[in-house]
This record gives sequence, structure tokens and C-alpha cells, in this order.
Amino acid sequence: MANKDVTDPVRMEKIVSLCKRRGFIFQAGELYGGLNGCWDYGPLGTELKRNLKDFWWRKTVQERDDVLGMDGAILTMEQVLKSSGHIGGFSDPMVDCKTCKGRFRADNLETYECKEKPSVCPGASPKCQLTEPREFNLMLQTNFGATGDQVAYLRPETAQSIFCQYKNILDSNRVKLPFGIAQIGKSFRNEINPRNYTFRSREFEQMEIEYFCHPEDGMRLTDEWLETRLCFYEEIGIPRTKLHILDVPDADRAFYSKKTYDIEYEFPFGIQELEGVAYRTDYDLGVHAKGSGRPLEYFDEETKERFLPHVVEPSAGCDRTVLALICEAFDEEELGTDGKSDMRTVMRFMPSMAPIKAAIFPLLKKNEEQVRIAHEIQRNLQQWMNVYYDDSGAVGRRYRRQDEVGTPFCITIDFETLGEEDPALKGTVTVRHRDSMEQIRLPANELLPWLLGRIR
Amino acid sequence: MANKDVTDPVRMEKIVSLCKRRGFIFQAGELYGGLNGCWDYGPLGTELKRNLKDFWWRKTVQERDDVLGMDGAILTMEQVLKSSGHIGGFSDPMVDCKTCKGRFRADNLETYECKEKPSVCPGASPKCQLTEPREFNLMLQTNFGATGDQVAYLRPETAQSIFCQYKNILDSNRVKLPFGIAQIGKSFRNEINPRNYTFRSREFEQMEIEYFCHPEDGMRLTDEWLETRLCFYEEIGIPRTKLHILDVPDADRAFYSKKTYDIEYEFPFGIQELEGVAYRTDYDLGVHAKGSGRPLEYFDEETKERFLPHVVEPSAGCDRTVLALICEAFDEEELGTDGKSDMRTVMRFMPSMAPIKAAIFPLLKKNEEQVRIAHEIQRNLQQWMNVYYDDSGAVGRRYRRQDEVGTPFCITIDFETLGEEDPALKGTVTVRHRDSMEQIRLPANELLPWLLGRIR
Repeated sequence: MANKDVTDPVRMEKIVSLCKRRGFIFQAGELYGGLNGCWDYGPLGTELKRNLKDFWWRKTVQERDDVLGMDGAILTMEQVLKSSGHIGGFSDPMVDCKTCKGRFRADNLETYECKEKPSVCPGASPKCQLTEPREFNLMLQTNFGATGDQVAYLRPETAQSIFCQYKNILDSNRVKLPFGIAQIGKSFRNEINPRNYTFRSREFEQMEIEYFCHPEDGMRLTDEWLETRLCFYEEIGIPRTKLHILDVPDADRAFYSKKTYDIEYEFPFGIQELEGVAYRTDYDLGVHAKGSGRPLEYFDEETKERFLPHVVEPSAGCDRTVLALICEAFDEEELGTDGKSDMRTVMRFMPSMAPIKAAIFPLLKKNEEQVRIAHEIQRNLQQWMNVYYDDSGAVGRRYRRQDEVGTPFCITIDFETLGEEDPALKGTVTVRHRDSMEQIRLPANELLPWLLGRIR
Repeated sequence: MANKDVTDPVRMEKIVSLCKRRGFIFQAGELYGGLNGCWDYGPLGTELKRNLKDFWWRKTVQERDDVLGMDGAILTMEQVLKSSGHIGGFSDPMVDCKTCKGRFRADNLETYECKEKPSVCPGASPKCQLTEPREFNLMLQTNFGATGDQVAYLRPETAQSIFCQYKNILDSNRVKLPFGIAQIGKSFRNEINPRNYTFRSREFEQMEIEYFCHPEDGMRLTDEWLETRLCFYEEIGIPRTKLHILDVPDADRAFYSKKTYDIEYEFPFGIQELEGVAYRTDYDLGVHAKGSGRPLEYFDEETKERFLPHVVEPSAGCDRTVLALICEAFDEEELGTDGKSDMRTVMRFMPSMAPIKAAIFPLLKKNEEQVRIAHEIQRNLQQWMNVYYDDSGAVGRRYRRQDEVGTPFCITIDFETLGEEDPALKGTVTVRHRDSMEQIRLPANELLPWLLGRIR
């Protein structure tokens, strides 16, 4: 996959450290030693993720006539996953090493570290004793019911509930082909080796679209969706130059897929998948029609044809995209002036994605009038966006704290606001830009429309 | 609980039927016979739920200085739930009937139906053979890890991840007591008898706040949060007169709680709990400090005291509130004119909660100019809100379809819009109000601000 070396472990360590220190991401259950492969989003990570999900929903559902939303249950019936092929088929080939007792994905041995020196990966040293690969099911199971003998699974993807409700949604909404059903929600996989921070987790959130269409439109729509999704990443601040499109070769595609593109991003730990855009043909509706014994055909009023729609599936990883946004935003800038070295850490989120849109500072926290105006501005703005009030320490340090979490605008209420230095500046505030560090003055009562125009 | 009979099974049946027919709510896995106690939200239900969650987040996190958000994992470590008392303690007393093989909550026998006539509930007939009550744990368990022998639970409440991350959030954010941490997310309980539609489900979403404070402020803040939460329900359209406040008596409260209020709503199936506002003292932080062996004290810079904060917990059921919004909105209105009976079904959602904010109709779908303007209005509005385009059937029928899903405004582009009847009306559209059915004319280019002012 990675034919270009983009790895930078030092950068990645700095990102992980910042995320913990400033409250973007914590390990789940950290207080008790941590739950491997599960993550909790702290205050800033939660806002970032909300911004991403809201923007995806707006672009995918709200602004389109042809996509409807749904929100399905995580608990999934055994029959659903039998039909879909997940029971039986959803597994990774694993090998065990009898020497070190480790378990590894057989198709990815080169990505693991082996403790037997000088071996670089499992199987490379004569001391390694690898078993034959065995299939290992990735689904998490649970039991419920009064006697606890009913089986359900935590869904391994949101897609199956879309296929299962396709007919209900078709019947309850006045839609015609082509149309899509979109869903954002948690899925679960028992990854044997969760790694690369939040990238490969056991619990993760997906943003999936199943786009139903006439069979003859499938290939064209797959290419169209690829382009739509690439534009989306640019709109949230991931440049096209950092994205790689993998046209998955025949041998690596699922047997029912006629075309699959992987959209990959240059993470500091390698080039890795953010999203798959797969043309799944009529496989899914076919297996569920057969498995449930219920007709899932679409009746075309115009041509009087009855057929199973084909499906194009753009399936994005929400946590992966959050991580890409964080990695892309992270920057260290040398500001050395007068021979003194001064490093600024700045998260260059687009304003639409930034967890905090504006920070509000009274220059002096003991100046009652500055504090009063600062709180008034805060109350006014926070009905429309996430803002942060800070009155402690020198303004320069407050700027730096906001730079580190990517707040695009800092608003300072100072003596000029009070008209004490120049009557013409009364009622104006300093607005400082995160990226350029440029400062401008704006009338306080123009702040709201000025910001609203920049954060969407 | 219910000392006032508000039950209306016929009304409830109509609501359930409408929710399925129009795509608010479907049973999960319905295609395969259904997964008991789990629900999928269809396109309209998803929008309604999103509106509710977004509004709660805005009021609870964004507009307050003293509450931070988080978004934690569903999978939860065994140790966390041992400390919290859920392992061992989180159970319902159940009795089995040897005659009918049913299993029932021992403390709620009167709410079940018994098949042994003329018995009205289990235990009332001499034929009933009830066992002694046994404790039945309500948590769903799963296994993970390479060998599948690691145990995790699906969280039974979002609260525990807040307590576990309280210290990380305190340390990474510059906050002082009192402050809260808020979370929206799924939780799971193995309800033995899921019922009352989505009310008692096995998978459900919560909107929880853990508000940390000085011990001496606990009782006062509990009363304040009760009032704040009651106002919230009024703001989303649930009138105070339909809410009941239960001051939970000593004997019924958890042993660590000094005060608990239940906020109940008059559902058509009875008066039932929407939210609990509980003063939990320092119980939670205490058990986690002990269980993890890590200090969780708060250090007060001013008084130099070190102590475990107390906690006030307003914990709302998201799905229950969605159901309350639906039940409250449902109305049938007799419009009989000229001696003809004509029943209108209308969902009287507040505009802020309505799944669709505005529907856009060209009067005639064959009139190209009307269609062009209608699409232009649609494209303009849908960047800001969820709208629906409909060009089929008589306008009167299109109004009724929108009434039934609660769309507050319908916009019709007609011949007057084209200036064909009165040049003074050129560029204006008909806006029809859902509740009053009153129609007004507005210039098309004033629609966006007019609507934005009404849907927030």
C-alpha cells in the first residue's frame, strides 16, 4: 500500500500527547489501566467529531434530494448476519507463534514487530514457530432475553440495518431510484491488534451511504461518488494531494463487488484507508431477499420493470477522519525573533471543523468594564457557536493555548474597547487570526455576522 | 405512580401506526421477524431525534460556561462496573410462573397481563404458581481479545465513563467547581419485558449530565437542575401541565442518593418517567477512587481544601423524549364543512423539533417556470434546514401529507408567483401554516430569514 514513505513516529507521538493533554482523546477505562482498542473523546474531541458528523449529514442528507437518513440499532439479529455472510465469513486469517505466544494477521505479518532479534517481523527469524493460518471471526456477540439464551451481535457495520430497512423506507417515503440511505453510528469489530492510536479500534463510528440504483448505472455512479467524496475531504481541510486513490484489484475485492476504490490518507504512521467506495451490485438485497423470504424488488412505474436495485456504498470511517483532521491540522511553527527560539504549536483546523470557534478575552480580568463586555459578547455568540472565555495570564499565553487547540479567532476586549485611548475605537475589539497571527479591529456588534460568515 | 388515568390505547395505536407508515420508527430486524426491544429510526424519526439531541447539546453544553461535553465508548471494563456496583447490584427481582412459563418483575406484577382468566395479573389467579423473586442482572456482556476470553459489558448508562474520565477532563481543561460533564450516547439493558413501544427498550440513548460541586451545594443544585430541566421540556413543546414531578421517597431512592426527582410525562400508556434528577453525593467518585486506587479529590485553590466533589445527575431518556414529542404532537382535527366529515391528522411539533421545516410545492408540475423557481427555493433553503420537495397530486393532498409529519410551513409556487394574475404579486409565494392552515404571501427572497427566525 505504502510505496511512499510518509511515516513520522515523532510527529505522531507529539499529536497523541497533545490530544491527551488538551482533552481531545483519552483511552477508555484509563483509570483502570485502559480498555485496549476503545477510546473516549474528551470535550474538544467531541466537538471536533460533532462538527465532522454534522457537516457530513448536511452535505449527504440535508442538501441532497436523493438521500434519506436513518439511525438503526446496534444490536443485530443472528439471521441478518447469517444472510449477509458475516457469520461464517467475516474473519481474518490469523497465525499464532508458539515461541512468543503472539497472534498476528497472516496477511499482514510484515507490519508487526517481533521480539526475537534480529528478526524484524513474525516468521523472519528461525526461532519463530508460526502455525498455519486460522480464520478468526471478528464479530462481538452478546446474549439477552429472560433466560439469556437469545443471541445478538454488535453490528460490524451500519450497512446491514440499511439493507434490512430499505423496503420500509422505500414504502414510507415517496422516493424513486436512484436514491440513497445514509447512517452515522457505532460499529464493533474484535480487532486482534488494535493500533495506530484510534485508527484501528474495536469500537468505531461509521458514516455510510447505501445508494440504490438501476443496474446499468452502478459503474458510473461509483465513479461519481468517488469524486463527491473526494470533494468532501477537501471541504473539511484534507488536501487532495494527501489523498491516494487505490483502485482495488480484482483479486483483492469482495467477490460480489465489481469495483472498489479505497480513499487513503497520508497518516504519520503510513498511508491508510479513510473510506471505501464499493459497487456491491445486487448482492446485499439478494441475500436478504433470500434469507428473509420476502420480496425486495423495486417496481419501476415508468418501465414496468421489477428488479433488485444495485448498490453503491461510500463508507467512511468517522474516527479515522477525525484522526486525519487532527494529523493534518497539527503544525509547529518556529517564531524565533531577536535570536530567541520560540516554537508555536498550532492546530490549523478549518474554522468549520474547529472545536472552539472563538475565544473571548478581557485584557485585564480586574477591569470590570472589560469583563462585563467580554461576558456580553460571550453570551451573544454562544447561542450560535462554541466559544471559550479565558481571563487568566498574559494575552500572549492565552493566544498560544488557543492555537494549540485550533481556535481560529481570538477576541480581546481592551482599553481601546472602552474608548479610553481613542474615542473612535470605542466599542471595537481586537480580533486575532490563528494562522497569520494578524490582528484587526472590529465593532463588537459586527462580530456575530462576521464570525458566522467564516465558520460554516 | 399513575393516580390519574391518562391511558388511551386507541390513541397509542394510531401513533404507532403513523410512525411506521410515515417512516418515523421501525422495529429493528423487522424483515426477519424483529428484534424485541430494539428500534430503528426511519428518515423522519432520525431528523426528529437529531433536532432533540442538538437542542439539548446547545442548551446544556454550548450555551453554558460550566458544562463540557464528552463522548465515551460503549464497551466498558469489568472493573469499572464492579466499582460502580453494577456487577452484583444492577438487577431486577423477577418471578417465574410455573403455569404459564412467563417471567415478570416481582415489583411490578400489576402491570402485566395474565393469560389465566379471570386473573388480571400474574399471581391473582389460584392457577398462577409464582416462584420466589430472584435477582436478574440487566447488563449485556460480550467477549473480545485474540483468544476471546476478555470480558466487557455494554454500558448500562453513560454516566460511568463520565466518572472515569472526570479527572482527565479536570486536568486537561481549566475548570473549577461547580462544573458538569455532559454526554449523549447509547446504553443497553436486558429488559425482560420490553414494552410500551420504544419506551422500555433494550438499546436506548441517554442524555446525561454529571454536575460536580461542593458538598454543601448539592441539595440546592439538585433543585436548580430540576427547574432547568423542566424549562427544557417546555422549550421543546412538552407543556408543564403534562409533566409530573415525583419526589422519590426515602425508601425508593438508591441508598447513596440524598434526593431524587423523577420527571414524568402523561404518555397515552400511563404516566411514566422521562428523566431523573438525582443528588448522588460523592458515592460515584468514592467507589472509583477506591476501586482504581487513584486519588480523585479536587483541590480548591482558594480554600486549600482537598475533597471528593458531590454530584448532581440530570439523566434524560432520549428515545423516551422523542416518544413524548410524538405523543404530544399527535392530533386529529375535525374539519367538517358543508356537512361533510373530514378528519385531519396533524403532528403539532414545535418548528424547532419538526423533522421537515418547510415543504416546497410547484402548483403544477408541468409548469416549467413554477418548477424552476421551486427548485431554486429548495436549493437555497436546504443549505440551512431540512426541506421537502413535492410536486405530485392536488395541493390540498400535499398539505395533508405534510400535516401528518408535522411540517410547520408549506410553500407553494403558483401562477401569482409568475406575475400572471397580478403583477404586484410577482415573485411572491404562498406560505401555509400547519396549525392554523392560514395562508400568507411572502416575497420568495424573504423566505430564508423568515423561516430561520421561526425554526430555531
